[in-house]
Amino acid sequence: MKAQNHRIRVGIIGYGNLGRGVEMAISQNQDMELVGIFTRRDPSTLASQAAAYNLQEVESFQDKIDVMVLCGGSAKDLPEQVPYIAKYFHTVDSFDTHAKIPEYLEVVDQAASASGKVSVISTGWDPGLFSLLRLLGQSVLPEGGDTHTFWGKGLSQGHSDALRRLEGVKGAVQYTIPKEEVLQEVRSGKPVTLSAADKHERVCYVVADEGVDLEDLQHRIKTMPHYFADYKTTVHFISEEELRKEHSNMPHGGTVIHTGESKVGDKQRVEFTLALDSNPAFTASVLVAYARAAFRLAQQGQSGAKTVFDIPFGLLSARPIDELIKELL
Amino acid sequence: MKAQNHRIRVGIIGYGNLGRGVEMAISQNQDMELVGIFTRRDPSTLASQAAAYNLQEVESFQDKIDVMVLCGGSAKDLPEQVPYIAKYFHTVDSFDTHAKIPEYLEVVDQAASASGKVSVISTGWDPGLFSLLRLLGQSVLPEGGDTHTFWGKGLSQGHSDALRRLEGVKGAVQYTIPKEEVLQEVRSGKPVTLSAADKHERVCYVVADEGVDLEDLQHRIKTMPHYFADYKTTVHFISEEELRKEHSNMPHGGTVIHTGESKVGDKQRVEFTLALDSNPAFTASVLVAYARAAFRLAQQGQSGAKTVFDIPFGLLSARPIDELIKELL
Repeated sequence: MKAQNHRIRVGIIGYGNLGRGVEMAISQNQDMELVGIFTRRDPSTLASQAAAYNLQEVESFQDKIDVMVLCGGSAKDLPEQVPYIAKYFHTVDSFDTHAKIPEYLEVVDQAASASGKVSVISTGWDPGLFSLLRLLGQSVLPEGGDTHTFWGKGLSQGHSDALRRLEGVKGAVQYTIPKEEVLQEVRSGKPVTLSAADKHERVCYVVADEGVDLEDLQHRIKTMPHYFADYKTTVHFISEEELRKEHSNMPHGGTVIHTGESKVGDKQRVEFTLALDSNPAFTASVLVAYARAAFRLAQQGQSGAKTVFDIPFGLLSARPIDELIKELL
Repeated sequence: MKAQNHRIRVGIIGYGNLGRGVEMAISQNQDMELVGIFTRRDPSTLASQAAAYNLQEVESFQDKIDVMVLCGGSAKDLPEQVPYIAKYFHTVDSFDTHAKIPEYLEVVDQAASASGKVSVISTGWDPGLFSLLRLLGQSVLPEGGDTHTFWGKGLSQGHSDALRRLEGVKGAVQYTIPKEEVLQEVRSGKPVTLSAADKHERVCYVVADEGVDLEDLQHRIKTMPHYFADYKTTVHFISEEELRKEHSNMPHGGTVIHTGESKVGDKQRVEFTLALDSNPAFTASVLVAYARAAFRLAQQGQSGAKTVFDIPFGLLSARPIDELIKELL
């Protein structure tokens, strides 16, 4: 591997939970430095010690930043920003609209190939690490089994928002929890066809407005189409104080289970689990490791859009490959 | 990725449990064909439907085989065979003497670089998939935690052999089992320093010769230095029939747990588990996936010795990358 002459210079675009996580993760990696945070807001309002700039200034940092970590949303921010930013910088993002990844990949690849930059798209934990484990399982054990992904126990932002939109709800969080008995069934390697509703239950903690008919509210939650109607759903009514004290973190995680048979009857199981106190902080940590990989791929002369499937794990670590081989292989 | 003009033509060297597993695994991968098995024994004695040849004939297969999967032992076979075979073929092996991997890598790299071949060394599940997960955990979460590897529940060949060498023992197997309470402690992210003996217990199933003093035999087992003296060891005396019926499979597996903190107090855990009915069959399945990767790396113009750290997961699958992205990312 080519020696690095300087620390990898990183920029962050977007400063929500994910952007703050990336800032923290960079501070844990001594081979990197955070050059600046770029925002569409007034930069002076950012609650960060790092230098903050208006996103409009970003082009002037062409010679000062190697890799830009994009922390915006998948719906609007990333499809708009990444093809533009890839003209000037290597990029990493967590674009997570699974169905739209192929077209997104193509657009980003055109931009990054044209500029000679490397763009790592759709990394994080799902898509990202979970995708890698699904692929690993299916590559090693192609027959006699199946791959299942369970999400949780974890706080679901979308479902929490859905609760909050209901009349009579003052505050709420929703946890998605894999059903233990279904996990066990999948582990056994028995062939099963499972919907998301078969695999998960939903537990809601709700602060109701004063005077609201709780039985009616519970009924409205449990019958909400798409969100709760198909699921085993439990509703707990709690106080505002309890919501703040017990439910303000963003834990998440999940499990990928792949089973197969090396020969008929030989059950083999590969299982990968994440248990995360902070979902955005972990996603950020993954983005930063792949920012290093993007930089190194570029040093090797590569360009264009890459996914986690294209990137060897040896490029993720700050440590020299001979040390990794000696200590971890 | 370059289109393949033919199926990947694979050879097997060595036909023990692992070699038989590789034969089986190749039959599960339609993009590969088994051209022949090479042995130092009389080829006509091999219990296989595949073509069998004497190892001395191997050089004449230069134009008929792409990748050779070496299934011999790490102590003598692989250090002798791989540098020689790498002159003529891409190779894959499961060299697993952890401490000697760096020097082995160097020797194989010289041979493979000189011939322009690709040699994937030290793959399987440990070293191999477990190494990958240790590296992934440490790359993504470099601070505030630790990495622990547990082996089992599984049959340990070395410890079973040690039992069988004792006077008064007719037959025996030994299972290595991770201690559940230590697994839980490690999962909590509490910093702990653990020896192998702290993490595992050993359970022995022994068929004693007739008339042997069982109490004395049990004492000799439990006090055997290196093998059992440091461990919590349980001995069960069973009949020959029970040994044959209940303990003739080779199950194994284990767990890699990496914990870290994205910021102080945010515990994040990455956990990878294998639960295998057949240890050699699974190792064989991994070798075959990496045989495909070796072939593809060579198609990309690469040569020399490679480890799992150098190889992106996208090269392990028989399926086209755009399908993988669409369905698994």
